[in-house]
Formats: sequence, structure tokens, C-alpha cells
Amino acid sequence: MTIVIHTIQGVRRVMNQMRTAGKTIGYVPTMGYLHEGHLALVEQAKREADIVIMSIFVNPAQFGPNEDFDEYPRDLDRDAALAKEHKVDYIFAPTVEEMYPTEQTIHIIPGAIAKKMCGASRPTHFDGVLKVILKLFNIVQPDYAYFGLKDAQQVAIIETFVHDFNIDVAIRRVSIVREEDGLAKSSRNVNLTEEERQKAPKIYEILREGRARLARGTRLEEVQAYIEEALVKETGGVVDYVSILHYPSLTEPRLGEEMIIACAVQFSKTRLIDNVIVGEDM
Amino acid sequence: MTIVIHTIQGVRRVMNQMRTAGKTIGYVPTMGYLHEGHLALVEQAKREADIVIMSIFVNPAQFGPNEDFDEYPRDLDRDAALAKEHKVDYIFAPTVEEMYPTEQTIHIIPGAIAKKMCGASRPTHFDGVLKVILKLFNIVQPDYAYFGLKDAQQVAIIETFVHDFNIDVAIRRVSIVREEDGLAKSSRNVNLTEEERQKAPKIYEILREGRARLARGTRLEEVQAYIEEALVKETGGVVDYVSILHYPSLTEPRLGEEMIIACAVQFSKTRLIDNVIVGEDM
Repeated sequence: MTIVIHTIQGVRRVMNQMRTAGKTIGYVPTMGYLHEGHLALVEQAKREADIVIMSIFVNPAQFGPNEDFDEYPRDLDRDAALAKEHKVDYIFAPTVEEMYPTEQTIHIIPGAIAKKMCGASRPTHFDGVLKVILKLFNIVQPDYAYFGLKDAQQVAIIETFVHDFNIDVAIRRVSIVREEDGLAKSSRNVNLTEEERQKAPKIYEILREGRARLARGTRLEEVQAYIEEALVKETGGVVDYVSILHYPSLTEPRLGEEMIIACAVQFSKTRLIDNVIVGEDM
Repeated sequence: MTIVIHTIQGVRRVMNQMRTAGKTIGYVPTMGYLHEGHLALVEQAKREADIVIMSIFVNPAQFGPNEDFDEYPRDLDRDAALAKEHKVDYIFAPTVEEMYPTEQTIHIIPGAIAKKMCGASRPTHFDGVLKVILKLFNIVQPDYAYFGLKDAQQVAIIETFVHDFNIDVAIRRVSIVREEDGLAKSSRNVNLTEEERQKAPKIYEILREGRARLARGTRLEEVQAYIEEALVKETGGVVDYVSILHYPSLTEPRLGEEMIIACAVQFSKTRLIDNVIVGEDM
């Protein structure tokens, strides 16, 4: 049985009961419109924790003024059914008013790590992510929290936040789940036109080719140029960025250490992100 | 017996044991060099919580570049003896390296509420306070935390922070403790010259006279001008600010609601703050 809770007080009460009973709590924060990527987070949470709680909240604070907050797909009934199928114990689905009853004037501002990649074109996005994540962590107080590596910069920033502020939650990274044709699963994929959807899998193909070239010793700048050019030519989208950086610090890459090759491509109605970690199985 | 713990891991372990045993935790954050003001926090914590933990940490993040971080008085042995006398169960006394092992690049920035009063002359002070408070709350995870009203702006900002970010700690305000002659107890009082020490009690006298004039219906601007002038004339110090504001929002005062009359006075080697709440026993 999956119980849907709409209030902060309700979540606190149930989570306190679970803690008192000695249960460990696994937490899967989402914006809903669930796909196999989210469900992979649930699967891992089910394996590691006694109780799994998922939040479904499209957080206005992490959308910029010209971004797709209104168009972001929502379907709580469908999400609740999927969550039930995957044995999620609790869903926390608050309203915006429940989460932000008053205007918040205290802001959490990440530094350089939030200026790279998505941060360059979404300057306040990660402020909004940290704002809601601190609130949600304080409401749920989980033992483990699960984040997908598709949002690799988000994972890196949240890991830094948790480390720097001694937040007592273990962050678990979960690998990207992909469609058969390689496109990273995303709630935003439904906003692609049919033609865009056909070309979008090229993103992953090109990132992997870039990784292979790096492995063969091609210079970083050349690999970056290849990826940019190939994305424009083969996806028909507008390239927002291609970044090759050390992971998870998002500083200059260092030979022999973990790296990320990440990109964002803007299509007619939606913007997709994807990445590959260098060192991963190729 | 008072046990002194120097590591984050050590505090976490003991606090987890206490929580598992069903004990409530009262927390008194301090920068040490304890005086009766701190001990009043301890007394209230002892009455309300099963276990009392005090932290002693002079937090560099809340001192500006030209402020008195180096001169701030420190004496852990004396503090531990006083804490023991007052039946504090645990002292958490970390080093700067334990609290800030790496440079922190994520900042917590309070808005307008931190620009008033002390925030005007100490522009990054409350960023540093919120940084260390979030860390300390996450390390200790107390049920109650005790703050003295001498730092009235700090109390107001921490209450806002806890409310806005759903931090699961009950904040307790504790009244100012004063010397016989009315001077608010402060670790900084030892840095007054003998002459300054003799004049410093005038601060409280003048604030009370201001409050009495307000109660008699004197206009706000006139009361403010009286206080400024009297402070200069009678304390010999330099007035940093005199503020009359709604409390705890620190916005414009509203007739019939709680107000604060607060000031800061700079002496030769140290800067003192004091305040009275309008509505309090006069």
C-alpha cells in the first residue's frame, strides 16, 4: 500500500513513528511524472532502507522566469499508481503553499560549482534546488537520499552541500536509465516533437564517441569541438553547452581522475541534458 | 560530570545514543568565555531537556576582516569548570579545522532582516552565523536550542531561518542577564577600559528612558534622536546605530505590536550591543 500525504506535519508524524520503531528511511525526491529513471532510484532505496518515501513536488524556486514551470508535466494519479506498483511506502505530495507559505528571504547560494554547465544558462536554478532540498531533508530526515546521475551537476552540488554543512543524510548516486535507443529517460522527453524524438538519441551516441576519442588520446579541445559540431549537425537542436570537467568538483579535468562529459541541447519546446562519466564501462 | 568532546563524530555518536534512549536534547551554542548570560541559557535548558550539550566555538566565519576574532577572549578550562558547576552534560569544543576542513563555497545569505542594526556595519556577520548554526544543528540535532536576547537580531534571523527551512529544532529565547549596575553581560566586557566600564551601564539606562518616553507618547524620531545624543554624551563611545523596529521582523514598527529599541556603541577596543523590548516589564 502506498499512502499519499499532503502536509509537512503528516510526513513528520509518520517519519517520527518509523524512526522510533528503528526503521531506516530511504528518500527519493522527484518532481513527479515518473519514468524508469525514478523507478531505478526506488529500486535501490527498497534494497537499502526499511521504508521508502518519495516526494513529488514541482519546485517553482528552481525554475527561471522564462523556463517551463507551467509546461512541466504533472500527473499525480499516474505517479501514485506507478509508485504503488514499485512498493513505495509513502508519497509526500505538498502544494506550493504548503512548502512556501511565506516569501523566503534567506537564500542558499552555491559558488563556482553552480556557475558551470547548466548554471551558466540557469543562474538561479541551483539556489532553488538547494532551498527545496534543505527543506525536504529537514521534513523527511531520511537516512539515505537517492539522486540520478542524469542531473550530474545537481548530484555534485548536493554532495558538496551535505559535506560542507554536516547534513546527516547519505547521498546515493544512481546511474542514468536510458530508452532502448539510448536517449536518457526524462520527464521532459514528452515535450519533444516526433522528429526531435527520433534525433535525440544521437546525443548519447555523440557523447560516447567523444569519450572513446578521449580514451584514444585525442586532445580535450578537439573532442569538445567534435561534440559541439556533431550535436548541431545530428540533433538539429541548439547546443547550450558541452563541458568536459573533473567530477564531482566540476573544476578543470585532471588526467587519471574521474571526468564528466556533459551537454545540454535546446529543442523547440524543451531542453535536454545528458552526460557520460569517463572511467565508466564504455 | 561534564564530558568535553572535540570531534564531530564523537558528538554524533553520543547524541545518537541519547536519542535512541529516548532522551530529549537541549543545546546551548556559545563562543565560550562564559558569563551569567550563558549560564541562564543552561539553567533553562536543564529545566526543559533531559540532556544539555553546550558548544564552545569562536566561529571565524562570523567575524569580518577588521573585527576582533583574534582578541575574542578564550579560556576552555575556566569554561569547562563553570559548565560542570551548572551540570552541563557535554561540551562540544571543536577546532576551526574540525568545523571547516575545506573552504566552503556554498553560502547562506539572509535578506533584508540582516541589513538592519548590526548587519549595516557587519555585512557578512549573519551569513557566518547561519553557516555555523546550520552545521551545529546538523551535528547536534537537538530538540531545543537556547539563544540570549542580547543578540536580538541573531535570534530574529535564526527564528526566520528555522521557520523558512523547516528545521526541526525549537528555538528558545532567553532574557538578557545584566550586571548589578545594568550593563548587559557580555564576553566582550573584559575588553573595556576601567573608565569605559564605569560609563557603559548608561547604555541600558538610556534605552530604558527611551522606552519610557515612547510609552508616554513621544514621537519615534524624537526618541531615536534623544537616545543617539545621550549615548554620545554619557558613554563617551561612538554610536554605531540606534534602531527602533518591529520585533522579530525588524521591519518598520507598528503601534500596539512588539518593538525593539536596540543600539551598538563602539569603545576603544570593543563594541557593545544592547536592547530593550517594548512591552516588557519596564
